[in-house]
Amino acid sequence: MERILDHLRQQREQHLEIFRAYLRLPSISSDPAQADQVAACGAYTAQLLREMGMEQVQLLPTGGPPVVTGGWFGAPGKPTVLIYGHYDVQPVDPLEAWEYPPFEPHIKNERMVARGSADDKGQVLMHILAVGACLQVSGRLPVNVRFLIEGEEEIGSPHLPEFLRQHQELLAADVAVVSDSFMWAEGMPAITASLRGLALIEVEARGPNRDLHSGSYGGVVANPVEILARLLARMKDDDGRILIPGFFDGVAEPAPEIAAQLAEIPFDREAYLKDLEVESDWGDPTRPMLERLWLRPTVEINGMWGGFTGAGSKTVLPARAFAKLSMRLVAGQDPDRIASLVGNFLRDQAPSSVEVTWRRLPGGGRAVAVPTDTQPMRAARRALAEAFGREPLIIREGASIPIVSDFRAILGLDTLLLGFALPDARTHSPNETFHLPTFFTGTEGVVRFFHHLGDV
Amino acid sequence: MERILDHLRQQREQHLEIFRAYLRLPSISSDPAQADQVAACGAYTAQLLREMGMEQVQLLPTGGPPVVTGGWFGAPGKPTVLIYGHYDVQPVDPLEAWEYPPFEPHIKNERMVARGSADDKGQVLMHILAVGACLQVSGRLPVNVRFLIEGEEEIGSPHLPEFLRQHQELLAADVAVVSDSFMWAEGMPAITASLRGLALIEVEARGPNRDLHSGSYGGVVANPVEILARLLARMKDDDGRILIPGFFDGVAEPAPEIAAQLAEIPFDREAYLKDLEVESDWGDPTRPMLERLWLRPTVEINGMWGGFTGAGSKTVLPARAFAKLSMRLVAGQDPDRIASLVGNFLRDQAPSSVEVTWRRLPGGGRAVAVPTDTQPMRAARRALAEAFGREPLIIREGASIPIVSDFRAILGLDTLLLGFALPDARTHSPNETFHLPTFFTGTEGVVRFFHHLGDV
Repeated sequence: MERILDHLRQQREQHLEIFRAYLRLPSISSDPAQADQVAACGAYTAQLLREMGMEQVQLLPTGGPPVVTGGWFGAPGKPTVLIYGHYDVQPVDPLEAWEYPPFEPHIKNERMVARGSADDKGQVLMHILAVGACLQVSGRLPVNVRFLIEGEEEIGSPHLPEFLRQHQELLAADVAVVSDSFMWAEGMPAITASLRGLALIEVEARGPNRDLHSGSYGGVVANPVEILARLLARMKDDDGRILIPGFFDGVAEPAPEIAAQLAEIPFDREAYLKDLEVESDWGDPTRPMLERLWLRPTVEINGMWGGFTGAGSKTVLPARAFAKLSMRLVAGQDPDRIASLVGNFLRDQAPSSVEVTWRRLPGGGRAVAVPTDTQPMRAARRALAEAFGREPLIIREGASIPIVSDFRAILGLDTLLLGFALPDARTHSPNETFHLPTFFTGTEGVVRFFHHLGDV
Repeated sequence: MERILDHLRQQREQHLEIFRAYLRLPSISSDPAQADQVAACGAYTAQLLREMGMEQVQLLPTGGPPVVTGGWFGAPGKPTVLIYGHYDVQPVDPLEAWEYPPFEPHIKNERMVARGSADDKGQVLMHILAVGACLQVSGRLPVNVRFLIEGEEEIGSPHLPEFLRQHQELLAADVAVVSDSFMWAEGMPAITASLRGLALIEVEARGPNRDLHSGSYGGVVANPVEILARLLARMKDDDGRILIPGFFDGVAEPAPEIAAQLAEIPFDREAYLKDLEVESDWGDPTRPMLERLWLRPTVEINGMWGGFTGAGSKTVLPARAFAKLSMRLVAGQDPDRIASLVGNFLRDQAPSSVEVTWRRLPGGGRAVAVPTDTQPMRAARRALAEAFGREPLIIREGASIPIVSDFRAILGLDTLLLGFALPDARTHSPNETFHLPTFFTGTEGVVRFFHHLGDV
């Protein structure tokens, strides 16, 4: 194994070149107009797998971008690891907030800056490079591996559950590994023990049949922007506690051992707020911030618009208003039920002069908890401890990777969440970064993980 | 006078051609990028005045689009009428809602359909054609006239007060006439006895220093869209009554004679709501709708936006949110004070984690009441009664023409508000129209008005 790690250290410049080339491919899955570019990025991913010695590399069709798969299966009797990642990325707006163009990777402050650097191309690439190094140095891997790299994670993986159902035999494995989450801090590795789920809706408020002159009509006609603002405001109290009836049904209080884990984490509230440049936090003040971030559900307005939004003024009473909402879910919450609960709460409280309707947006899934006492988990903890020189923290994640619950439900697999993004990675924001020392050390950690898992 | 009216009737086709040519000139004053087109429309207006025999026609510079002026001054001893109008128009969005392109005039259902047809090019043109007909037929006018046609009424006439102050001598007159408002219905002429005032603000809510991942941060960071929605919702109660402290200070209850005038107006609530396709009205249920429309102030959200507003979803917790508000004012309300009251109400209630700021948008002015017992008012009532065959109603208008209060304050003039748009004119909305039989009959009414005013 040491020879493999040495090889990785010698190849860093070459690996950076591969990383840059990968990041230069725009792959924004939320924009249907860019479907060709997303598919091209998938093809490049497949080419990378082939170059690293993977077999059975294929681009498998879905209703959306293709799934890239392939692997190495020369270790009979050893466990098979299903390595999941995604080659699509978030949109880049507001574009003007980027220091460099989002698809022209730059290195700054030991970090690779580009859209997708941390979420998720960099983390996918660590596994590809780890596997490639093993094969190049020793011609074999200590375990069997199967890659599953999709192209629509950022829009909620609408086609992947069906894909899993159709390819259950192909994807047979002993454990899944997903690297699409965070370390606790630089030099402080972490394994993520739970993820929140997700449900998405879009709400429309319709008032008069046309935009009206706000002077000639103002005072007798309900304004759908105002009504929608009023309805959205009713979802929470002044502290940010969610008031939607039934929203917390089935949500349990954190178990004592989990509460204890949370309390052990060196969370620095002041540094957290300073990084965001906000004066204070927001949300149920009776619960610790980490509990609110990881173990409590949310309702968030991702966007809202209506009326005149250009330069200057237009004295209009708008005909329509819109909002996009995402609900982050915890154990005990069903995405369908929560979407209906929130959508109907808004719809049913509208006054008679404004019609409110809502629809699901694609994507979403249930929250996931990962058992922490399994053999793959022990192998991962040992690998990360050796690579980074300290025991990984058991943390949790507020974001959603719906595929993880599908791995459990459809493939019967537990998932190891080995996250390598730093908290300052700005995933989903302008100037996304991936910390390069972590990229290199983490890749060594992946090699170590394969070996410890294969030692069983 | 009859020969002049006959001449007008014979010239209708030619007048329609002039009307169409005028409407083909886009003149959207709110878009700085279209300043050249607005200026070109001003030049065309000046050319029209010259063709109709006006003297001293000039394009006078302002800080914005030029003011067009010119007149006829050959009736010494007779009153001088200052005829005000505007050649600029509202924006055209949403463009897809137009049946025809907004600057390609079409006649449909006896109506000229185009942006600016009613507001205000058609009404300006009636005066120009009336004056032209008088001069063509009899070589003289029974009164002196001075046109004052500006190019930025739709953004609140920011440069006009200063223009009036600089040109007080040039603009000396006995009465002003403004045709930029509405009849009560087809065949039911009206004179508008009051206008609401206007104040405009834009509000910005700033939360974290960047757009955040709604999963990774949701639950502990205040969302500026949500906070802005919450603050805007607080401005009114569930019935639409304004709750901002001090907002109604100085607002008097309608005098008994005005309340009686309102009660006489044949207002058809059901038809009004049906036209807008809304189930019910909105606003203080203890006050009649016409009172709310004409004699009570409003706060209206003209536009609101923040976060992701594109196709699909982006699970973002936005960094910023914006709203544009217009306040319609009544007698006793100062625009500066009301703008501050509303802006500060929103700013001061923001939680510590979101910074709310506001700024004035250009334009606005006080409400205006017009005395109804003056000689010009009597001449106008008689002229309209003869032209349309029925006595004009004394109505009021919820929209703002700030220039009217400036005429009073700066030039010492009362203003006659002779409106010729029908209620279905869709001013400020897609598919704006001007009813052509009213256009022709109203032009005759203007000729009659000049004669009755000159008879004194």
